[in-house]
Amino acid sequence: MRKIYLIGIGPGNSDYLTLQAIDTMKKVDVFFILEKEKGFKEFLKIRKEILEKYLDRETYRVVNAKIPKRKKNRKSYKEEVKTWREQKAEVITELIENKMKDGEIGAFLIWGDPSLYDGHLEILQHILKEGAVNFEYKVIPGITSIQILAARHKIPLNRIGESIVITTGRKLKEYTPDRITNTVVLLDNYSTFKDFKDSDIDIYWGGYLGSKDEILLSGRLKDIIEDLKKIRREAKREKSWLMDTYILRRPEGPESNE
Amino acid sequence: MRKIYLIGIGPGNSDYLTLQAIDTMKKVDVFFILEKEKGFKEFLKIRKEILEKYLDRETYRVVNAKIPKRKKNRKSYKEEVKTWREQKAEVITELIENKMKDGEIGAFLIWGDPSLYDGHLEILQHILKEGAVNFEYKVIPGITSIQILAARHKIPLNRIGESIVITTGRKLKEYTPDRITNTVVLLDNYSTFKDFKDSDIDIYWGGYLGSKDEILLSGRLKDIIEDLKKIRREAKREKSWLMDTYILRRPEGPESNE
Repeated sequence: MRKIYLIGIGPGNSDYLTLQAIDTMKKVDVFFILEKEKGFKEFLKIRKEILEKYLDRETYRVVNAKIPKRKKNRKSYKEEVKTWREQKAEVITELIENKMKDGEIGAFLIWGDPSLYDGHLEILQHILKEGAVNFEYKVIPGITSIQILAARHKIPLNRIGESIVITTGRKLKEYTPDRITNTVVLLDNYSTFKDFKDSDIDIYWGGYLGSKDEILLSGRLKDIIEDLKKIRREAKREKSWLMDTYILRRPEGPESNE
Repeated sequence: MRKIYLIGIGPGNSDYLTLQAIDTMKKVDVFFILEKEKGFKEFLKIRKEILEKYLDRETYRVVNAKIPKRKKNRKSYKEEVKTWREQKAEVITELIENKMKDGEIGAFLIWGDPSLYDGHLEILQHILKEGAVNFEYKVIPGITSIQILAARHKIPLNRIGESIVITTGRKLKEYTPDRITNTVVLLDNYSTFKDFKDSDIDIYWGGYLGSKDEILLSGRLKDIIEDLKKIRREAKREKSWLMDTYILRRPEGPESNE
């Protein structure tokens, strides 16, 4: 039986690796690296550094594969992502079938945590359901950018007894300001925080979290929004990609329903 | 200047320590251990194991302190926790003032992640505001039981494009079944999941996550609720304490507002 590990490596920096992730990597025969993400070169560099730093070069091999770009589907974001995942599933099926032998262990090094806004787990389950190739699999959790964001700003994700919502820029568009309590936003390409600039809401923002290029900014949204827009614009120009995360929080007061 | 680290150690097992946590522990002069939690002896044992396994015994000292029990305040949970935190702040102020010298580094080893449903960060900020003693402080993120739960059940915390809500048993009481999409519940002493047993909702449950006593159970809530109640009852009887976490999820369908 083949075995696949999805190993969370944390964001930006090998300091966030867990002992479990390192112990697991030591058992792996073949690491699959998919070329796709924004800022891919930097992601690749960190993955290579991790392998070189913690593993004995003789014990593993690396197989790279290209995966198709996501094609826009204007009707449904969900369908768009589903189609893209099916295309990735084809590539990954091929890798498992042809690039690893029976009894071997393969792995994907996942930015952050495989359980949070990452598709690999569902892709593996899709492949097993299709039945083209059989394998066992296991998930190794990793530190997320949300956790780095809270740690760097020295804030708890929740205040006493409150809930936390983790959402995407896309869904945040549907929110009214009174629904904001502790709202963590990921994958926001549209600067959706702008929709809340007229309310009394604080923002704790971080770009390239965990990396040497990390940028932090926080304050009352209406006071810092121009700075934030400028910082985001300049970062995108300089590096050609930006990965950012932020928390919106209403100052302490009557609780919302979240 | 004194310096305090809040170090997330993950739950149940030293395998979840990050390299950053270990590197930070190596700089620490004094570890403060507060005697309070349910299952305290086991928590203490794991902390001691971590120190003995990763540090050189000559480089650090351990200071234990007793903290008062939380007193029930029937009027307001928030006030109850606030009062308790103020009492803890007194104990911690005393520790920082009298048990560490100027220029030394102190640390608290925090179960899970200091940013998630843990009061130490707010206690340190309260102490600084009171002005009784001055220090710098820093947060080191750790793997949470939520991440272990998802990894063990091999599920993502969110499905494509959906939000995630992290909440407490106390707040879950206010939820109607249609508000459940991906709802992570912590600190539920009241088995609040029972309120949803008549709806088509799946539960992914875990007790003592990350430890050798870990228990997992999942399925359609209405089908497994009696098993779950029995497992919880027996675990509590056997160990005298239970720390559990679960995810409630509506099977795929039209999305709720979360």
